[in-house]
Amino acid sequence: MSSFSRFTPLVQSLPATVPFVGPEAIERNRGLMVKARIGANENGFGPSHAVIAAIAEAATDTWKYNDPENFELKAALAAHLGIRAENIAIGEGIDDLLGLIVRMVIEPGFPVVTSFGAYPTFNFHVAGFGGRLVTTPYIDDREDLNGLLDLVRRENAPLVYFANPDNPMGSWHTADDIVAFAKALPETCLMILDEAYCETGPADATPAMAALIDMPNILRTRTFSKAYGLAGARIGYAISTPGTAQAFDKIRNHFGMARISTAAALAALKDQAYLTKVIGDISASRDRIAKIARDNGLLPLASATNFVAVDCGRDGVYARSIVDGLMEHGVFIRMPGVAPLNRCIRISAGTEKDMALLEEALPQVLKALK
Amino acid sequence: MSSFSRFTPLVQSLPATVPFVGPEAIERNRGLMVKARIGANENGFGPSHAVIAAIAEAATDTWKYNDPENFELKAALAAHLGIRAENIAIGEGIDDLLGLIVRMVIEPGFPVVTSFGAYPTFNFHVAGFGGRLVTTPYIDDREDLNGLLDLVRRENAPLVYFANPDNPMGSWHTADDIVAFAKALPETCLMILDEAYCETGPADATPAMAALIDMPNILRTRTFSKAYGLAGARIGYAISTPGTAQAFDKIRNHFGMARISTAAALAALKDQAYLTKVIGDISASRDRIAKIARDNGLLPLASATNFVAVDCGRDGVYARSIVDGLMEHGVFIRMPGVAPLNRCIRISAGTEKDMALLEEALPQVLKALK
Repeated sequence: MSSFSRFTPLVQSLPATVPFVGPEAIERNRGLMVKARIGANENGFGPSHAVIAAIAEAATDTWKYNDPENFELKAALAAHLGIRAENIAIGEGIDDLLGLIVRMVIEPGFPVVTSFGAYPTFNFHVAGFGGRLVTTPYIDDREDLNGLLDLVRRENAPLVYFANPDNPMGSWHTADDIVAFAKALPETCLMILDEAYCETGPADATPAMAALIDMPNILRTRTFSKAYGLAGARIGYAISTPGTAQAFDKIRNHFGMARISTAAALAALKDQAYLTKVIGDISASRDRIAKIARDNGLLPLASATNFVAVDCGRDGVYARSIVDGLMEHGVFIRMPGVAPLNRCIRISAGTEKDMALLEEALPQVLKALK
Repeated sequence: MSSFSRFTPLVQSLPATVPFVGPEAIERNRGLMVKARIGANENGFGPSHAVIAAIAEAATDTWKYNDPENFELKAALAAHLGIRAENIAIGEGIDDLLGLIVRMVIEPGFPVVTSFGAYPTFNFHVAGFGGRLVTTPYIDDREDLNGLLDLVRRENAPLVYFANPDNPMGSWHTADDIVAFAKALPETCLMILDEAYCETGPADATPAMAALIDMPNILRTRTFSKAYGLAGARIGYAISTPGTAQAFDKIRNHFGMARISTAAALAALKDQAYLTKVIGDISASRDRIAKIARDNGLLPLASATNFVAVDCGRDGVYARSIVDGLMEHGVFIRMPGVAPLNRCIRISAGTEKDMALLEEALPQVLKALK
């Protein structure tokens, strides 16, 4: 297949990886239809009526570019979080922000610390800029703060990634432990504290804004994709000191944000009553998933996220056969990528309709595998 | 302002540039209200009813991530253009694609050829990856193909940018000349042929797909932001050989596209009758702008785009005072950034309401400047 001959050596060396295969691609490739979409940690409870109305209202203005400064959204987030607009950077989902952060810090060969089995899209971006991943294993299905800190020191690493609550395991650390980790970190190491799932976790798992806001080497990333139910809108944000937050302006795609998406995010942020309701729905759905798992002899792990990792008690091959088997029934789920995490399957919270399909399909799949 | 201490030297050296100040920022900074938004080459005629309906229909699904493979949109574009889906890469507007292209080709210090005064966002991305801009002046307000070719050869440049029709001048070259340029180019130089405005130009200004589709070093970029009226949706695409087009997959933000935006683009592509109508509206509006300019003693340049560059007959300071003066009347326009192009102002096509505001304000502004 003929391609341009003079891409950089780095780009030439990269595979055409896709961090995740989408459910649409699975449908196309396997000739199956997804009936329960509970694999991508989306939010099947969807956005509120207020958000739908805001989208409809914004539709006629979609001929206009979005405000490249994201002024309104920054102001609304700042008011909501009790910080300043200058503390915030906006991007096309956390995925976009992760790419920009890696670019700002990593040159080819630089070490980047993360947990073995953590977020693949972060690893994709590290590879994309030639970084060298250095990993420490999960301990008891939680990211290992001490292990991460040791690696940062050993490697003099400029970048460490840590998600709390964690994806793919759903586990979490307390705010106190995270703040202690942040303070122990050398100032020459930028910490990405990925809080994509913070809204669905216990209150004491999320550090207060004030605890970290003055540290230029701490970048917290958050999103409207999970609890807010706007994965398709692509709105993520990063929180740090003004100096660190504004560094994004040096390289970001200033006109990259979709205008309707911003309108949707503003409406979603305003509707905190709906958010509270959905968080309750997600919590109930986690319990439902846990019960279905236990009823089938599987072990659900405690979760602070909008999904549940379920220990299937055997290896990755077995878990993969459950994932594939469920898809035969139209139930789309995913699983962690590496051992020992991949003894688990990962099921996203969803509506009762989704849960009923899961409940019906799972015992059939397990029986067929016996 | 305290920021992380260990950003790469390249990132530390970059200014927090914004390629363009948005009209919203001008409103905020100057305490003025935009009444006629005819400065950003948007399309005030807006998207069709079919597009608005598609957006409303897609709204309830915005909790789902978009298909990362953009399968449907690629298939629709391929059918429309008579090429294969494998020839196409999708991104968050051409701006996003330009950043990815620069990243794929440019290492610090590498030369990049463009015209002096051409698209600032491209230059922004070149600076962002440490490239070295090498420019040749416009000749008679057109990009100089011979000058570009000479520079590519002299510098052994791996990347050249050329827009046809051109922004900010609205001028164009014939398809024959562009194909001749492409064929004369060394295979070791990637040509970005930016066709953001191709729909509004004369038919003989756009090379046939077949003329360039087998050349791995030619990348044509197009967008739904201009004639299709979806600037706020952020949908751009690049056309090349499968090998070159698929290189984007190595580094792009696979989950970066907004789901509603894709639905809007699909609907817009389907509604070619509306596109034809809007192109007629834009053409009529260009004539209207030209007449207003002439009635005020200014010289409109011929345009193949959705805007008209108007020669104000003096220097950049004078043109800037017209731009600023019109904004006092709520008429938002822009102007080219460098001499001698900046003797012009640049007015986007718009509705009759916009044109009436321009017609009323321009003589007052010119009179006040006397």
